[in-house]
Amino acid sequence: MMKNILLLFVSLILASQVKAQFTKQDSSVVKGFYSEALSTAQAYNDLYYLCKKIGHRIAGSEAADKAILWGDSVLKSIPADNVFLMPVKVPKWKRGKKEFAAIYVGKKKTEIPLRALGGSVGTNGTLKAEVVEVKDFEDLKAKGDQVKGKIVFINKAFDPAIINTGSAYGNTSPIRTNGASEAAKYGAVGCIIRSLTSADDKFPHTGAMRYKDDVTKIPAAALSSLDAHFLHEALQSNKKILFEMRMECERFDSVMQSNVIGEIKGTVYPEKIIVVGGHLDSWDVGEGAHDDGTGIVQSMEVLRIMKATGYKPACTIRAVLYINEEFGNDGGETYAKVAKEKGWEHVAAIESDGGGFTPKGFSCDAQDGQVEWAKSLMPFFEPYNLYSFKRGWSGVDIGPLKNGSTMLFALMVDGQRYFDFHHTDNDRFENVNKRELELGAASMASLVYFIDQKVQKETTQK
Amino acid sequence: MMKNILLLFVSLILASQVKAQFTKQDSSVVKGFYSEALSTAQAYNDLYYLCKKIGHRIAGSEAADKAILWGDSVLKSIPADNVFLMPVKVPKWKRGKKEFAAIYVGKKKTEIPLRALGGSVGTNGTLKAEVVEVKDFEDLKAKGDQVKGKIVFINKAFDPAIINTGSAYGNTSPIRTNGASEAAKYGAVGCIIRSLTSADDKFPHTGAMRYKDDVTKIPAAALSSLDAHFLHEALQSNKKILFEMRMECERFDSVMQSNVIGEIKGTVYPEKIIVVGGHLDSWDVGEGAHDDGTGIVQSMEVLRIMKATGYKPACTIRAVLYINEEFGNDGGETYAKVAKEKGWEHVAAIESDGGGFTPKGFSCDAQDGQVEWAKSLMPFFEPYNLYSFKRGWSGVDIGPLKNGSTMLFALMVDGQRYFDFHHTDNDRFENVNKRELELGAASMASLVYFIDQKVQKETTQK
Repeated sequence: MMKNILLLFVSLILASQVKAQFTKQDSSVVKGFYSEALSTAQAYNDLYYLCKKIGHRIAGSEAADKAILWGDSVLKSIPADNVFLMPVKVPKWKRGKKEFAAIYVGKKKTEIPLRALGGSVGTNGTLKAEVVEVKDFEDLKAKGDQVKGKIVFINKAFDPAIINTGSAYGNTSPIRTNGASEAAKYGAVGCIIRSLTSADDKFPHTGAMRYKDDVTKIPAAALSSLDAHFLHEALQSNKKILFEMRMECERFDSVMQSNVIGEIKGTVYPEKIIVVGGHLDSWDVGEGAHDDGTGIVQSMEVLRIMKATGYKPACTIRAVLYINEEFGNDGGETYAKVAKEKGWEHVAAIESDGGGFTPKGFSCDAQDGQVEWAKSLMPFFEPYNLYSFKRGWSGVDIGPLKNGSTMLFALMVDGQRYFDFHHTDNDRFENVNKRELELGAASMASLVYFIDQKVQKETTQK
Repeated sequence: MMKNILLLFVSLILASQVKAQFTKQDSSVVKGFYSEALSTAQAYNDLYYLCKKIGHRIAGSEAADKAILWGDSVLKSIPADNVFLMPVKVPKWKRGKKEFAAIYVGKKKTEIPLRALGGSVGTNGTLKAEVVEVKDFEDLKAKGDQVKGKIVFINKAFDPAIINTGSAYGNTSPIRTNGASEAAKYGAVGCIIRSLTSADDKFPHTGAMRYKDDVTKIPAAALSSLDAHFLHEALQSNKKILFEMRMECERFDSVMQSNVIGEIKGTVYPEKIIVVGGHLDSWDVGEGAHDDGTGIVQSMEVLRIMKATGYKPACTIRAVLYINEEFGNDGGETYAKVAKEKGWEHVAAIESDGGGFTPKGFSCDAQDGQVEWAKSLMPFFEPYNLYSFKRGWSGVDIGPLKNGSTMLFALMVDGQRYFDFHHTDNDRFENVNKRELELGAASMASLVYFIDQKVQKETTQK
């Protein structure tokens, strides 16, 4: 008994001392990374070029072709040790001429901005019909018999009381993806939704929708949050409400584009790869600044920071600029497929696709022990204001790399503003803060450093 | 020996269990506070009125008088149980007609925006002189013999590698406060400084300066960071560089204005006071949105949230809208003086004066045990993304309440953008995010709740 108690006592003492130990090298390398990122405007200037000289760049477009060439040239200019393109088949969908929409309250006509959802069919001329408002899919089911020949208006707002906007988005996004298919089941001729946003403004938000196999393809579009409110109020009156919309969207045959890949070759374990990435494509509105220009320039900045500070990684560090995250994840799927075919060994992958805001940590999708290791980094990062190291989702592009051994991470950022801009004309360079962007790049580089060190330690111990 | 080990063992077990315990009531009250703040636009609408209908409001101005009446009326409309004004003597300084400035590089004249520093004398007509650039006060001392009859240009930038911008500001701000006095010692006729900012833009930043007793009062003003760069580059050429400036600033006799105070009377210990506050005055540029309109509306929102959710505090909760933080802290000093005279018992005071950005925690200026108590709240606030509970500075306005027993707190926010706006024409309502503002108000209300609970527990234990 006493012996057991003593053993327990010793193990308690030991447990209380299991604190990660950080070396002087850790401090000096990471400080160097942050100083380099914060004192050099490279990532911000790159973002300026991508946003202002290329602009939005939906997969399959000429602008996306330009962005691929640009990414290739920036990576070569770092210079990365090796830069190459990986062919990816992507869908091609065009919005066509700017959408038209109007709400008729009795005889009064009010024109409003409208955005077709990505993948929607056009209206084939003008579509004008009565509106039936529903709160959600359950409400749609209840009102199913009133919907035939009408335009369904799904007016589901973000729950403002949810602290993290990403969760509110997750709860609401099915109305965008599946709203048209659900409405079509009941004979609706069109589907309009309240934009997926936490802001009250006049920007409609586009984003991917999909038609289920067994339904009629009806046009799908988003209203701004303020216009959704206006339409809702109008429907409370006793007047007849009509909605008119014109969209010329069209789907074309798939085309070939590319992931862009640049890497610093590992000095000790060149066969072991750590990926940093984001997606090069954007929706075909705004400038794709926060979604995901910032992730692209941050990923390239990780390589540049390492070169500029003279850090020579043991593993190969690879920046991957994925094509077509937004409408099918072809870049991510293709990369994982090629990786499997070629037997590439991925130690880890880190994605930045939450906007270029102040970083707050990393979520980690990996084995328990790996997540615990990530958590052990927390005290080190405290002076850099990174505090959140938790199990969680990583990212769309790197998701297909999940195989039970590769550690997947998402850069977590302060997301309160993200859905003010997401998929709108307002996702512009001006809405990205230079320092916040740079802090994210330095945070990613620092996590790569610790992963690189971990590999060295573990391999030496074997 | 064995007994000692056992004792140690038991105390270790106990130590590992000293985790703050939170009740269901804690969870439900705080959740209610956040939901109320995030679902009601009151604070944001209040800020709109203050910024757009009143605008900037330097102490001593008519606009500040209007802001005092407005604060009084908002507090009454909550309704606070008790609203009153506290007379405060404040200085009166006027910028006068918009400043004029130009840089002459040889014969080429470039007009640039200029802002007199608060408290500066005017130029008494046009001041035109050669420029001597110095890096800092040490460099000024070294170049002392070249300065006579010239305009000293102190070109000290924020160190971008410092993670928290507030620290970079702290390192740099003496050039604004004392630059003119230091330059005058060597016979300079004017002093211009690089704006205290982390942004590269065309906004000059004003802010308080003071003349030391024993020096000639020379005009002091700020250039934007980009114009400081331009002037620096010009000075590298071999051409003659002249700087021309016209400022009509004037100092007047002090006037009487007021702190505005509203309170919810405590149900159990009405004599024990918990203050939430910010400052009602701003600099005489922009709209005083982040500095400190946000702190003002958040403080009033704390009272409103408590009323709206039906929380009846044991202690008296008092929102204090301080007048003249910016140019002498008269509101804060007067409040503390009156508090002492009247024997008011302040349990705690919380200030919000770091901008209306996403909150990250509270710094605490108090006794060790009180700081430890504050740290014990951290696990509770983790789902609300508050993670920083540390010993640290509280705020200018509440600072004079420090007496060894009152706990002083500052709401800490993500400050990366703060010095993009601070004391400029760009400190406008549009640069405040609604949710970020609301999260700050709810965080303050929640800390007040825990302080109120602490008082009840401690008083019951006695």
